[in-house]
Amino acid sequence: MMAQQKTFAGNFFEDFDLDDVIVHGTPRTITEGDVALYIALTGSRHVLHCADTVAKECGFEKTPIDNLLLFHVAFGKTVPEVSLNAVANLGYAECRFINPAYTGDTVSVVSRVIGLKENSNGKTGIVYVHSIAKNQSDTTLVEWKRWVMVNKKVPSAPTGINSQPETLPTVEMTEDLIPDTLSFKQFSQEWTASNHLWSDYSPGESIEHVDGMTINDSDHSLATRLYQNNAKVHFDAYAMQHSRHGNRLVYGGHIMSLCRALSYNGLANGLWLASINGGAHANPSFAGDTIYCRSIIMDKGEFETRSDIGWLRVKTYGFKNCQEDIRQQILAQTPVNLKNDHVVLELDYTLLAPKL
Amino acid sequence: MMAQQKTFAGNFFEDFDLDDVIVHGTPRTITEGDVALYIALTGSRHVLHCADTVAKECGFEKTPIDNLLLFHVAFGKTVPEVSLNAVANLGYAECRFINPAYTGDTVSVVSRVIGLKENSNGKTGIVYVHSIAKNQSDTTLVEWKRWVMVNKKVPSAPTGINSQPETLPTVEMTEDLIPDTLSFKQFSQEWTASNHLWSDYSPGESIEHVDGMTINDSDHSLATRLYQNNAKVHFDAYAMQHSRHGNRLVYGGHIMSLCRALSYNGLANGLWLASINGGAHANPSFAGDTIYCRSIIMDKGEFETRSDIGWLRVKTYGFKNCQEDIRQQILAQTPVNLKNDHVVLELDYTLLAPKL
Amino acid sequence: MMAQQKTFAGNFFEDFDLDDVIVHGTPRTITEGDVALYIALTGSRHVLHCADTVAKECGFEKTPIDNLLLFHVAFGKTVPEVSLNAVANLGYAECRFINPAYTGDTVSVVSRVIGLKENSNGKTGIVYVHSIAKNQSDTTLVEWKRWVMVNKKVPSAPTGINSQPETLPTVEMTEDLIPDTLSFKQFSQEWTASNHLWSDYSPGESIEHVDGMTINDSDHSLATRLYQNNAKVHFDAYAMQHSRHGNRLVYGGHIMSLCRALSYNGLANGLWLASINGGAHANPSFAGDTIYCRSIIMDKGEFETRSDIGWLRVKTYGFKNCQEDIRQQILAQTPVNLKNDHVVLELDYTLLAPKL
Repeated sequence: MMAQQKTFAGNFFEDFDLDDVIVHGTPRTITEGDVALYIALTGSRHVLHCADTVAKECGFEKTPIDNLLLFHVAFGKTVPEVSLNAVANLGYAECRFINPAYTGDTVSVVSRVIGLKENSNGKTGIVYVHSIAKNQSDTTLVEWKRWVMVNKKVPSAPTGINSQPETLPTVEMTEDLIPDTLSFKQFSQEWTASNHLWSDYSPGESIEHVDGMTINDSDHSLATRLYQNNAKVHFDAYAMQHSRHGNRLVYGGHIMSLCRALSYNGLANGLWLASINGGAHANPSFAGDTIYCRSIIMDKGEFETRSDIGWLRVKTYGFKNCQEDIRQQILAQTPVNLKNDHVVLELDYTLLAPKL
Repeated sequence: MMAQQKTFAGNFFEDFDLDDVIVHGTPRTITEGDVALYIALTGSRHVLHCADTVAKECGFEKTPIDNLLLFHVAFGKTVPEVSLNAVANLGYAECRFINPAYTGDTVSVVSRVIGLKENSNGKTGIVYVHSIAKNQSDTTLVEWKRWVMVNKKVPSAPTGINSQPETLPTVEMTEDLIPDTLSFKQFSQEWTASNHLWSDYSPGESIEHVDGMTINDSDHSLATRLYQNNAKVHFDAYAMQHSRHGNRLVYGGHIMSLCRALSYNGLANGLWLASINGGAHANPSFAGDTIYCRSIIMDKGEFETRSDIGWLRVKTYGFKNCQEDIRQQILAQTPVNLKNDHVVLELDYTLLAPKL
Repeated sequence: MMAQQKTFAGNFFEDFDLDDVIVHGTPRTITEGDVALYIALTGSRHVLHCADTVAKECGFEKTPIDNLLLFHVAFGKTVPEVSLNAVANLGYAECRFINPAYTGDTVSVVSRVIGLKENSNGKTGIVYVHSIAKNQSDTTLVEWKRWVMVNKKVPSAPTGINSQPETLPTVEMTEDLIPDTLSFKQFSQEWTASNHLWSDYSPGESIEHVDGMTINDSDHSLATRLYQNNAKVHFDAYAMQHSRHGNRLVYGGHIMSLCRALSYNGLANGLWLASINGGAHANPSFAGDTIYCRSIIMDKGEFETRSDIGWLRVKTYGFKNCQEDIRQQILAQTPVNLKNDHVVLELDYTLLAPKL
């Protein structure tokens, strides 16, 4: 009887070395089934990802995969080796959506360890990875950096390992981040029933997205399983009842997707998600929570050679179980207090919008 | 800070004018993913919509989209402009399924305001719309009329606006409502394991469908998000706890679909839904409710030039949380008391069935 | 008023005769939507069923349907005629996955009654059926035998009907059970991020799969509806509250799928499910239960003409709501006590694994 030797219990801080390259398993073909489920799970109405007709008018061969769906699938691949023993997902940076993915594409992911920092308590350390997801033709679809706090196998006096990588505060918006064939020249406000274009948004503007979405247990379980993210905290209620949370945690990426979906009302013409500059899961969410969001336009810009496309840098804040006046008050403070119990997400990202 | 100006809070009674044409946003490509989800959400076994082999033997190029799935997707498109501020969905009429939709078809919807009637309390009014859903080739798939009670922006003494359209009590069954290539000449009872054909049903006959289906929170949320219907009452439990219902309402269309699915046992050979003559959501449903249904054959008829197809007009009543004897008693009364707490749906529709 | 005559209430013990052939209704085309839902419902990561690239390297034209998904769809077809009035699903045997199914295949099922045994109480009897699922080209995909306890229409002194078929204790592993074009010659451990091959497993070895999965009401309802299995016990909470269980039962096949998915961690390279030798649903599961599993390698073998493929016979035990030490203790006893409240499944099956 050789119990457990075949089972992989995840990596601990000591298992990582700087510049390690990890080839993650279980490549995944994305299909129309995933796309439909993503709509059913989030209520997303972002039109490029639900209408072939519009996608073609924008220069795509067919509906491209929603970049957040792509991100979640790719992210899920990295969980077994990177974050199965994670205490916390600390942050994201430099997430670039380099090429569109389509149904039929098979996504596989490789990560490189770009930083390691032992914590002063000797019990945990921070692992920084740079992950790249490619399709079956070796074309890069998306890359990102993230850092997670991981348990040490053997808690001990710290060894002083401290190699922190530099990450950019925002992804620089260059034409490289415009999909090759993308054009908004045919834009029609009938696509979204919204006439707010790039020129109508101003830095500093705050947008209350009004709608709310209550999370059911099955919603977040289905989403997280769809992404083949196997982190125990999302699935094992029996074990989690003894955790400090007392309950399964909703995968943070599901909150990102709910907020992006809810922000359709106010940002419907932010048609293409080009980058994620950073993200923080301010507080955990649980089944039963109702999620709302509110966005601030941080910056905007143009591309030298493109008259049809501009970019908007947006911070969308996710909230739970509170009314609009509370959301407004929280965002009226600078800096935003992410420790407020009602705040669940700060997501800094850049959208491409039609410019006429 | 210009909060909220970008967000659309829905139209109020005063925002509608007679003959207004509304082009609804977010056209939607229906895929195999939607079809599988529809089966998972409803348990539907109606064979034309789950077996390519049978669909081809009936003259379709492949499995056509279930007309109720098509209806829900198309209906969802109209919610932002028509019923976001609806107090109640009052009724449907003249819903004609004119051409079959297939996976890959992109549905877009246009509505025309065909009636406006202010209520005597001055607080609300009734808006009547005629909606038409077309595919990417401008072919009409389905059209329907519905009327909703909408809040006024400014409650005041009524202005006397009163322009009620005429609607037909039932859709006239003509050969136009038989899909162009449809044939039941190859019909085999092996398709459905049921040998009850058109000739076996008689007006006045009552059919108890026996099975029940309990609604879970995630079921109705997934369904309603799949249809991109964003009416707040279905999703925002935090807000709804302060409503008179105290809880999220199940989208009435989900009840229609559950009843159609449950009616397979008894109406399996009612293969094609040709029209919806009318519908009433008698009482709201909530997660936890168990839905049953019982049908009455209202009428039947033939088509002059078709020996293979007959039509059955059916009223299916949806019930919740009651046993068969209660359902039988309620339907034994004429007219049926729709105010009985156990009644959730009265759906009047016409099916095409094989006739040999 | 001829209520209920059109509705089929299921067969009783007296309705079956030896050698009866039952053509089940509602053939079903399996699509990419079903595949995505299966992943979302189970969290399965078995790579042949989620990556076209890997499937092609193994000689398939594209991702084959997971054999458990195929089984559940085919099994669901048999429920109306075989087990609608079943008191219990007693067992399975000789389930052979003969040819792979692909998206686009339409599955139809025929069963033959191969045994009938009245129980001594005169109230119930056991019905044994041999079911065969074929695709649209009349190619056999999967066959199995099962036996269920069915209520008698008229309880009475037993008539002595007693014709029990012989079933094999395990499916003999021959090259017939290797899909025609299957090859593991290109195997790469990057497919699964696991390097445990056929040669690394030994009979008697016990594998603790570590992870747990909590079942939500909507999860099992969606799964069972997807398979169009209409057994009332899974869906009708209103009726089930008066049963001895007090609640809806989770479809046993969902537990099989959860255990197969959870066993990825430890059996990731058991790439192809070739047969199910037997199965027992030891105790019922309910929404809220957290499922774990642990496997024992029962046997292993080679194929005379194949250097790339070996087989592993595995017994996977499903558990609920207990910690690893309890699972270990239960499996340390011979025979395993299936009456222990924590045991929900014993599944005996054979996997094909790469052999290098």
